[in-house]
Amino acid sequence: MLDEYATWFEKNQEALLEDFFTFLRFPSISTDPAHKKDLLACKDWLASYMKSIGLETEVWETSGHPTVFGSYEGGDGPTLLFYGHYDVQPEVPLEEWKSPPFEPEVRDNVVYARGAIDNKGQGFYTLLAIRAFLEMAKEKKINIKVLIEGEEEVGSPGLEGILDEKSEELKADHIFIVDLDMYGKGIPAVTLGIRGVTNINVSVKNSNTDLHSGVYGGIVLNPARALATALGKMWNEKGEVTIPGFYEGVKALSKEEHANFDWESDVKKEAAPFDVKVFKGEGDFSLLESNWIRPTLEINGMESGYTGDGFKTIIPSKAMAKLSCRLVPNQDPEQVISAIETFLKKNLPEGIEVSLEKGHGTPGVMTSPNSETVKETSKAYEAVYHTKCRRKLCGATIPIAGMLSKICGGELVMMGVGLGTDNMHAPNECFGLDRFKEGFLSVTQILEIFSRGGIHGTDE
Amino acid sequence: MLDEYATWFEKNQEALLEDFFTFLRFPSISTDPAHKKDLLACKDWLASYMKSIGLETEVWETSGHPTVFGSYEGGDGPTLLFYGHYDVQPEVPLEEWKSPPFEPEVRDNVVYARGAIDNKGQGFYTLLAIRAFLEMAKEKKINIKVLIEGEEEVGSPGLEGILDEKSEELKADHIFIVDLDMYGKGIPAVTLGIRGVTNINVSVKNSNTDLHSGVYGGIVLNPARALATALGKMWNEKGEVTIPGFYEGVKALSKEEHANFDWESDVKKEAAPFDVKVFKGEGDFSLLESNWIRPTLEINGMESGYTGDGFKTIIPSKAMAKLSCRLVPNQDPEQVISAIETFLKKNLPEGIEVSLEKGHGTPGVMTSPNSETVKETSKAYEAVYHTKCRRKLCGATIPIAGMLSKICGGELVMMGVGLGTDNMHAPNECFGLDRFKEGFLSVTQILEIFSRGGIHGTDE
Repeated sequence: MLDEYATWFEKNQEALLEDFFTFLRFPSISTDPAHKKDLLACKDWLASYMKSIGLETEVWETSGHPTVFGSYEGGDGPTLLFYGHYDVQPEVPLEEWKSPPFEPEVRDNVVYARGAIDNKGQGFYTLLAIRAFLEMAKEKKINIKVLIEGEEEVGSPGLEGILDEKSEELKADHIFIVDLDMYGKGIPAVTLGIRGVTNINVSVKNSNTDLHSGVYGGIVLNPARALATALGKMWNEKGEVTIPGFYEGVKALSKEEHANFDWESDVKKEAAPFDVKVFKGEGDFSLLESNWIRPTLEINGMESGYTGDGFKTIIPSKAMAKLSCRLVPNQDPEQVISAIETFLKKNLPEGIEVSLEKGHGTPGVMTSPNSETVKETSKAYEAVYHTKCRRKLCGATIPIAGMLSKICGGELVMMGVGLGTDNMHAPNECFGLDRFKEGFLSVTQILEIFSRGGIHGTDE
Repeated sequence: MLDEYATWFEKNQEALLEDFFTFLRFPSISTDPAHKKDLLACKDWLASYMKSIGLETEVWETSGHPTVFGSYEGGDGPTLLFYGHYDVQPEVPLEEWKSPPFEPEVRDNVVYARGAIDNKGQGFYTLLAIRAFLEMAKEKKINIKVLIEGEEEVGSPGLEGILDEKSEELKADHIFIVDLDMYGKGIPAVTLGIRGVTNINVSVKNSNTDLHSGVYGGIVLNPARALATALGKMWNEKGEVTIPGFYEGVKALSKEEHANFDWESDVKKEAAPFDVKVFKGEGDFSLLESNWIRPTLEINGMESGYTGDGFKTIIPSKAMAKLSCRLVPNQDPEQVISAIETFLKKNLPEGIEVSLEKGHGTPGVMTSPNSETVKETSKAYEAVYHTKCRRKLCGATIPIAGMLSKICGGELVMMGVGLGTDNMHAPNECFGLDRFKEGFLSVTQILEIFSRGGIHGTDE
């Protein structure tokens, strides 16, 4: 059935892309309250599109932007749930875009627009695959659910808040988060784990105003020095985090577990566009291991005193740093933040005023590498790409992944056809139309495989 | 002659203060190019005022704002040079002023205005004292020189540039820098040493853009972490600077030298308005010793990555810190900066892009505590205040002091009637009119003492 789907795509290509571009034209920037209306308009269009392709569609209100849910009941077969999001990142810096971010433009068979890949592109080819499947498949003995939310780029607080009440609707055997990358150009991959995230901002204050560094130097402790000293103690020379308890719960992978993933990515080569001067992993772990299976602690921002041109000889009144961690499975975000808090309080001078602002943590997720979901998704990719589907992890975070997996009850796989060169979250975000079609074909194959009872049994 | 001068002041008070307030109304902010015209207008008014009181007056052009020089030749006696400046600090933050900074307002016999004390107030009572002396003194066997520059608040680069060519005009036996503080309310002081200053800004860059902390965390070194780590190593727990060579040239004071100064200042009490949480000196030195006779290294500012509200999970592209040192005599500013540079390069990761911006250094100055200049200035203060004149040092810097002392060839004393509560460089700068008069009387007594051949010989 691969050729038939390819033919269907080619025949309808012009109209399909016109719909895709309409979807891309909504400036659905979830972090900016000024775009609230655009998110609502985008949601209305999306719900109406999902209805038009044969899905029972509902809009779920949340504390923030709404979620669109669609379903198709095919009978006694397995239930597949596809996850995506219709919200996008801000377009700043606008001046670096070669064409306007919300006016999709095709150059050399690549579409340029905010959301082109993340996640309107990957979401839309998934919808097209479902549409083609419902139009053409001989067997449709599966149930399909589609969950497209509007707050992924801001941590999914709204969807998280309604998961419990929607647990019945969300029950599924196989969950596909279609928001990830390939292994490399032409090489498909399933992503079997992502890291969690947690944040803490620390601010220290030692006087109610900046002080003259001559009149008070030698008398008043400098809070920037106090903070830099404490921060400087958080890592050793090997790049390991020295905070007691930071690595609590982190499990080493056994040789067998390690062998579940493909480790040949050349991360230095992938970072080439960013002109990176110094690469640094953790201790004796490789860079890829440090990114995939080890937690990190980063300074995301620092500020103190005078930061303008020239010199200003003051002892700053205060100093602040923003810290965040990427977490691996079995680390508890709250325990990690509490360890950092204890460390800071111990290493900052007694008596200095310390303020902490803690973010909402998300734990890391690792899915089973041997689930039917993973195996059949790999087979689908291999049918399209004619090369072995790789198994990888990802150092980034999809906030909802862990919770979704629990609520739905099924096995999770993270997938997608993104590439590091797609400028996600950056100016000139883009998506090659060849890959758009390949993504479409891959999802049709997933639907076909499961509707025919899966490869389960023949392939074990 | 003290009473006569007091009577003269009281009789003319209204007109004298009107002239003073005219001087204060010029917004002569030297650091802001937008005020260039105001500095020129202020200089014209000042030169004309100095002429009117009997001084031969010249305007010396410099690379920046001009200097006003006035002189009176009284014959064969000693030559006294008084130094001051007509430029002022910026008025920001304007909203914290209770009355407009350039519209002097008297409340409870205290005048509020930018420059009220620093240095228009101290400069103007010095001119009034010269005027009264020239009008009333029976003996005028002294030569008087007055040097009032327009760039003290920006490091005196213009005046410094013309010192050599003006060395003949500047020759003096006694040099009075009238820009300092008392020992405390009602307790006069001479200041026998000040610290120098030098600056260095350091910036490190590791990628050409901020990077996603999930995608690159564990792979790319975080430059904020690199900088915080290097900065954190610059001091030990005792508050000593650990940079090799930083203390090169610093001499310990002998017991006798130590006894030249009065050490009973309560610096914690003086800092009370600033609600300081942690005081910290260097090693086993007292806070006052750490401020007066020890060098310091401060972080004046730091910046990296995201500093707005909330959280942003990035690895910053770069990080920067602004550092400055206060230096004591015998430290070489260039050697100190070079030691810091070496330390930074050694403690920052190999390969990271490091940019350094070095400021113009000024060495520390210590004057002889036993000069005739110091002794007779003390006597003048004691005649006005009826209490022992204290001998102190100052942790701040007057950039021109060291060079002026060398060029003029005479002995230097730093003096003045400022108090920590005068809000120098801050909103609501002020100067009590009682102290304005006491400052005036003190300078008249200096002129009288020297014109009568000094106390030299009778007091040794």
